[in-house]
Amino acid sequence: MSFEKLCLHTITTKSWDLQTAVQKYSAAGIGGVSIWQDSAQAYAGGLKAAGEMTRSEGLDIVSYVRGGFFTGLDAATRQKAIDHNKSMIDEAAELGAPLIVLVCGATPGQSLFTSRDQIAEGLAQVMPHAEAAGVKLGIEPLHPMYADSRSAVSTMAQSNAICDIVDHKNLGITLDVFHVWWDDQLEAQIKVTGEKGRLFSFHICDWKDNPEDMLNDRGLMGEGVIDIPQIRSWVNAAGFDGYDEVEIFSNRYWAMDQDEYLAMIKQAYLDTK
Amino acid sequence: MSFEKLCLHTITTKSWDLQTAVQKYSAAGIGGVSIWQDSAQAYAGGLKAAGEMTRSEGLDIVSYVRGGFFTGLDAATRQKAIDHNKSMIDEAAELGAPLIVLVCGATPGQSLFTSRDQIAEGLAQVMPHAEAAGVKLGIEPLHPMYADSRSAVSTMAQSNAICDIVDHKNLGITLDVFHVWWDDQLEAQIKVTGEKGRLFSFHICDWKDNPEDMLNDRGLMGEGVIDIPQIRSWVNAAGFDGYDEVEIFSNRYWAMDQDEYLAMIKQAYLDTK
Repeated sequence: MSFEKLCLHTITTKSWDLQTAVQKYSAAGIGGVSIWQDSAQAYAGGLKAAGEMTRSEGLDIVSYVRGGFFTGLDAATRQKAIDHNKSMIDEAAELGAPLIVLVCGATPGQSLFTSRDQIAEGLAQVMPHAEAAGVKLGIEPLHPMYADSRSAVSTMAQSNAICDIVDHKNLGITLDVFHVWWDDQLEAQIKVTGEKGRLFSFHICDWKDNPEDMLNDRGLMGEGVIDIPQIRSWVNAAGFDGYDEVEIFSNRYWAMDQDEYLAMIKQAYLDTK
Repeated sequence: MSFEKLCLHTITTKSWDLQTAVQKYSAAGIGGVSIWQDSAQAYAGGLKAAGEMTRSEGLDIVSYVRGGFFTGLDAATRQKAIDHNKSMIDEAAELGAPLIVLVCGATPGQSLFTSRDQIAEGLAQVMPHAEAAGVKLGIEPLHPMYADSRSAVSTMAQSNAICDIVDHKNLGITLDVFHVWWDDQLEAQIKVTGEKGRLFSFHICDWKDNPEDMLNDRGLMGEGVIDIPQIRSWVNAAGFDGYDEVEIFSNRYWAMDQDEYLAMIKQAYLDTK
């Protein structure tokens, strides 16, 4: 069994700096890496060199994480977010990352409907910049437990609706099983996403029974309640043939030996193929 | 301003035993109480006497909390749940509570679709018992962050679908703003619930920005991101004229002086009317 279509997010093994992570993943036969902004920015040689180093180790850069946060109570705040996303697009281009994952934002004090309108408006402003840079943007619907201040976009249906409004070939969706596994419309909406040619990336991990923490207690694939093979079958049926990206925030796993953890991730990936 | 249509759940001030809670609420001019099972069972004189004591203090018993948990991997587990719910119905009748709130259950290892089928099947088994006892049952959709093992019913739409399947006048819905505030179908589904005459009760509290805990960090009304007046207006437009029930699980509030807390609850209720 090969790990060519396995990709890790640098945050999954966040105590490793970018070079260490890339070398470890490469030595493990893993094909891809999604690079978090802090990890890339800490690389001494700059973003361009970080990208070259990564590719020279034989790894594909799958995505740059993460842009978004388009909402705000006033226009100045929203303009700042648009400018920030344009900068991130430039950074992604420098790094050689084809895709930026978006956590779209939510603002306490305004309705989620208003926030979603602002997200669509912000995206419309940045898409020409993304196209010129040859970078795609993937809306990642986040679990409704993050609808307070992280993402007013909680479902694939809302993501598809925003893509329909903005209507740009560089805009699509990043599906993370952690966020959408519970949704009774998931299969149908994955199908729509595939038909529209906008399923850009696929994140895996697991939802543990009774997580201890809302952010940092994600499980390894197979450790929780998500039927990953089922969701992957829908994703594949929708035409997706990209990477399985492992993105796990976990105080427990971050605290253990990261080489052992990497071996566990590979095994969990095999067990849930 | 009167507190006649305000109701507190005993768990909101859980360090008070039932008699203390009832006397404190009554002295505060509050009209109703929803009684949790542990609180009722700890009353020395038994359930019938607990009900009489409560009414003699001038409080309405609004609901008995909580039944449900109908799912399970094998038939014996599910039969046990059905028997347990029948017992709870008997208890509610003894107490004089017109309604039992249901947390419907979810079982790791089976799909949410299967769990929802089992919930409908379990309910169909208990409804004749509920009708004979003169007790109503309210399905409470729970936030998707509890879909692992607490409730496969996460939305008002799923609740309405189960009510349609079971189709019994004693079965309806309990809406808690904490669980459903994020849902873009909320207004439409409240309307359906009203048209079908099945909106049985209404729970309020708030979703804080960045809660510290998935269970026990609920906010007072007005302290978080939920637009309670907006949701109440939909509920009232759907014909609901029952109690505003305050159900707050909060390590922070449980740790403070409960008389002061009670005064804060009353003020928060006024501020979000």
